[in-house]
Formats: sequence, structure tokens, C-alpha cells
Amino acid sequence: MIQRTRGVQSICFTEAPFIMSSASVVGKKERQGPLGKKYDLYDTENLFGKKTWEEAEGMMQKHACRLALEKLNYAPEKVRYLFGGDLLRQGIATSMGIEGLQIPFFGLFGACSTSGEALALAAMSVAAGYGEHMLAVTSSHFGTAEKEFRFPLSYANQRPLSSHWTVTGSGAFLVGNKRSNVCIPEITVGKIVDYGFKDSQNMGACMAPAAADTIERNLLDLGREADEYDRIITGDLGYVGQSILFDLMRKKGIDIKKNHMDCGMIIYDQNSQDTHSGGSGCGCAAVTLAAYILPKIQKGEWKKVLFVPTGALMSTVSFNEGESVPGIAHGIVLEHC
Amino acid sequence: MIQRTRGVQSICFTEAPFIMSSASVVGKKERQGPLGKKYDLYDTENLFGKKTWEEAEGMMQKHACRLALEKLNYAPEKVRYLFGGDLLRQGIATSMGIEGLQIPFFGLFGACSTSGEALALAAMSVAAGYGEHMLAVTSSHFGTAEKEFRFPLSYANQRPLSSHWTVTGSGAFLVGNKRSNVCIPEITVGKIVDYGFKDSQNMGACMAPAAADTIERNLLDLGREADEYDRIITGDLGYVGQSILFDLMRKKGIDIKKNHMDCGMIIYDQNSQDTHSGGSGCGCAAVTLAAYILPKIQKGEWKKVLFVPTGALMSTVSFNEGESVPGIAHGIVLEHC
Repeated sequence: MIQRTRGVQSICFTEAPFIMSSASVVGKKERQGPLGKKYDLYDTENLFGKKTWEEAEGMMQKHACRLALEKLNYAPEKVRYLFGGDLLRQGIATSMGIEGLQIPFFGLFGACSTSGEALALAAMSVAAGYGEHMLAVTSSHFGTAEKEFRFPLSYANQRPLSSHWTVTGSGAFLVGNKRSNVCIPEITVGKIVDYGFKDSQNMGACMAPAAADTIERNLLDLGREADEYDRIITGDLGYVGQSILFDLMRKKGIDIKKNHMDCGMIIYDQNSQDTHSGGSGCGCAAVTLAAYILPKIQKGEWKKVLFVPTGALMSTVSFNEGESVPGIAHGIVLEHC
Repeated sequence: MIQRTRGVQSICFTEAPFIMSSASVVGKKERQGPLGKKYDLYDTENLFGKKTWEEAEGMMQKHACRLALEKLNYAPEKVRYLFGGDLLRQGIATSMGIEGLQIPFFGLFGACSTSGEALALAAMSVAAGYGEHMLAVTSSHFGTAEKEFRFPLSYANQRPLSSHWTVTGSGAFLVGNKRSNVCIPEITVGKIVDYGFKDSQNMGACMAPAAADTIERNLLDLGREADEYDRIITGDLGYVGQSILFDLMRKKGIDIKKNHMDCGMIIYDQNSQDTHSGGSGCGCAAVTLAAYILPKIQKGEWKKVLFVPTGALMSTVSFNEGESVPGIAHGIVLEHC
């Protein structure tokens, strides 16, 4: 058997799987943001023809999956397994959204790191020969997330400056063994990292230690310097989390200031869109990857990127019981090929 | 590359991974049940030294993982990846429980089918050479589940006869490439199946169609007759779900009455323990597998078993919005070797 493991947490695929297709679906605020024209589909009502936010979020996943398949003229039957998740209790957006596709399904939860988790498992499954095509899909929705984690929208409560704005969006990725311009040569699976932060309105601080841990581990496992990546792209640390990440990396003797980018910081215009620390949610990293990052790698503008979606493992129950908010981050290496 | 897929949803592993070790941790009611003396660890307080049910559930996962490792004198560092989940919103029992082990982690959600999902991914990862040892762990807790899905315990509300009793328990499984008496030669990954049932107090009815679908698919994919299995063991259909499963299978022309068993029906004594339709929860199938099923396969009493944990993909949010409760079931073939 070919040994594919490398270091403590990483896998180097003998035959790197490809991201053969992707699609992004977003809401009104994302459409109005700096990347607005790059998304495949948007709905200014944020409801996608449905009556509840949860159904709408499910609908976004369905649209994203169907669009990713349509770009290759593929039917859902071509997909062997689907890996997906969202932020909601019991992953209902995903189960409502993908049910109609009737693809054998692995349900995931990794908070906002889920797009990394889904891509990792899809790549592992393709590289192992468990099927030719896998779908990875995640979503988040401002309406469902505020209801799940914070306050009813009609309260119109004030948000601290360290808080994030949950992205209304879904990104789907078809990972397969047929050549495209972007492959996944390596992955680094993250551990839970908990510095004891308890402030769920400062998720950047909760997630930055996990991002730092996974980035360092990726470099150690693969014997690589940080500047070998054109970009190291975290999911949704935001402005607060980025400054903590820089501090933590400096202490590790690693400088990523020149090539770091955060999806949560580029998805909205901080000045005009009132989004405080930045965007967040499973959809944040996913739609930014589909609409902005992948096209740059496809064109060869970026040759090698470390994509690190970051998740804050919190719930209202654990928050109310005084528990901390641990973080997790998975590293996906994306290469122009 | 070796093609390992078979049929529409199944994988036949070229080198079948082994269940090298397992452990079960339960609460008071499970200890008092018919399998009571077979479990590795129990706590009659159901709190495992913690102050909240959620922490207690996390603690059960930690104990189960540590016990499974200790049986082989393994340190957590020996484990490459951990696949785990529970029923709670944002999987907090798992993230609190396994954090201390510091094993790279894939968070899962498949309702009560999660033990099957975790075993499937662990087996896929070992068989592909992504590591020598993987941990699969799941849990449920009566106290956390009632809080999450139903009513505060102090209401002491009446339970309909079709309802289940959530098992307080956690099962952990070390899947690896070193020979033991039980291997996983094949798996069948389930699809979401929704017959439109909306009664969350009748989960057996919600899950039975998914179990029927996965069992039929397993037999079709592998070209097998139902009676080639010594037992076909569903997770937690209970008495109500079993009768529906028999009806559905009969319509498919498959008779599984002789060799069907349901973990939810054997974990409690229906007459003396007041558990109505039977046990349920991620922990139900997991502890029954660890404490009762695996020993029988190890001894060769059963040569070939199809283990089918069943999940009801429901949440209070989707329930309150009038949504149905879809089901999912994953099939794990277990063989004496």
C-alpha cells in the first residue's frame, strides 16, 4: 500500500484530486459587497423562493450543488458521495437542501471550518479510488445563524465591534479525478485548539489559535516555508482575529503578514457595509473560494495557496453553561496545474 | 488505482480494516438493562463527575476513547484521525469530550446513524492508507437529548407509546490495519430518505424507510441474499419501527424477519424499564455494538453481520416550522476473521 501520510497531521496524495467545478450562491449583502459580481447566483430577498430562513439556506445548497454539476453537464447520479454541513442544530439546512439530489451523504459539523473538512474528505475519497466524483458543500445564512446563536432579528440589538456578520451563501465543489486547472495535492487535518476564550461575540479571537496551529503544522509536516505559498487564506478570522494570528505566528517565528488573506475581510466593505470585524459562517470561506480564489489559481495568477477555513465550536447551550469556545481549522493546499 | 467501489453506494475494501478495540460507557438505566454487565464503565449518577449533562456526555466520549486505547496499551498519539459526533446542537459533547485527546478531528452529524458514519469513514481512511489507526466515537445522553429535543425533565411530561428513550452511553472503536477477529470488508453509504412523517415522537416510523433503503441497496450492490447475514442489526428503530421495516422489506420481496435485530429493542427491558418503543440516540447502536455484537462476532458465534445504525434528521427548529423528519442509515458489514 502506498503510504500517503506525511508528518503528524497531513496527507500528500499520490495522485492529487482536482476541483473540477464549483459554484457560489449568495444573498443581497454579499451581492453588494466587493466580490458581488463574481458569484453565480444571488437573491436580493435572501429567501430563494422559500418561506423560512432554514428552507432558504437549504435551497442555496441545492442551487450551489446543481450549478456546480451543470457547469460540466453532469447529473447528480455522477456523484458518488456528498460531504456537507452547515452551522445549524442537527444540520437541517444541509439535510433539507441536498435531499432532492439523492446522493449518498456524509453529514459534517466543523462550524465555519466545514468547507475545509468537506473538501478534505472529498479529496481523500477520490484519491483512494472510492469514486470518480464527490461533492463538497457548505452554507450559512444570516437569518438562520442569528436565530441559532444570538438574538431575534427584530430586537435589532447592538453588535460589538469584534463581532462578525454571518454570510448568506453556499459554495459547492465537485472534486474528482479528471484534470482541471486546480488540484489538491495535500491536506492538513486540524485539531481542536482551546485558549479558553468565552466571548462568542469575538470569534476571531477564538479561532485564531486553531488557524495558527494548523498553518504551523502544515509547514512542519510538508517541510515548507510560509512564503512558498502565494497566499495563506484563512476562513473568517476577521480584522480582530487576523491581528491575533499575526502575533501568534510571530511567536512561532513564522511571518505570514505578506501573504495572508482572510475571506471574512474581503467579502464585505468594512466601511460602507457595517460588518465590524468581517464576514463569517460556513458560507464565507466557501463562496470566496468558489468565486474569487479558485479563478485566480485556475488562471495561474496564484500557483500555490494554503486554504484554511476556521471554525468556532460554540453553541448557545455550552455558552450559557459558561464553557469556552474552542476553535478548529483544516488546511487544504490548492495548486495551479 | 484499485477500484474499490461496488454498485451504486457500496465500497468493498481491497484490504479490509479491522476493529482492533472498542469500549462502552453507559449510565444507570443502561446498567440496569439486559446488557448491563457487559459494558466497560458506568456511572449511576449519569454525571461522570461533571456538573452539566453536556459535560457528562463529553466525559463519556473521553472515557470510551481512552478505554478503547488502553485495551491495546495505545497512547492517543497512535491515532491518526478521530471521527466523532453526537446529537446536540453544534456537536458540543464531542468537541468538549475529545479535545483533551488532541487527535486531528473530523466532526460528524448523522443523528443516530453517526456511529455508522464514523465507522465508515474510519474504515475508508485506514483502507486507503491514510493512517494505521483511526478512532470512531459517538454518544448520547438522556438528559442532554431531552433538553435538546423535547421538554425540560422537571416537567415530567407524558411520553407516547411510540416514543423512544435516549440511551445514556458512548461507544468508541479503534479501526486499524492490524489483525483482530472482526473486520469491515464492505460498507454501504446511505441516502436521505423522507416519507414525509412529521411526528418526532415516532422516530421509528421516520427511520424505517431509510433502513429499508440501505439494507436493500447493500444486498443489491453486493449481490447478496438477506439470509447470508447471521444478523441484520438496525440501530434504534424500536418496536414500532421494526414492524414498519418488516412491511417495507416484504414489499421489496425481502424477508429479514428471521435474522433482524434492533439495538433499541435489546438495550432495555420493555416491560420493567418503561421505555416504550425502545432505546435511541447515537449511543444506543454504539454501546450495543461494543458490548454485545462485537464479542459475538469475535467468538465466531456470528460470522457475518450487517450493522445499520439509523438516524432521524430532526431539530426543534425544523419541527416547529412544520418540516418532516427525514431518515438516513449507513450499512457496515462486520465479519469474523
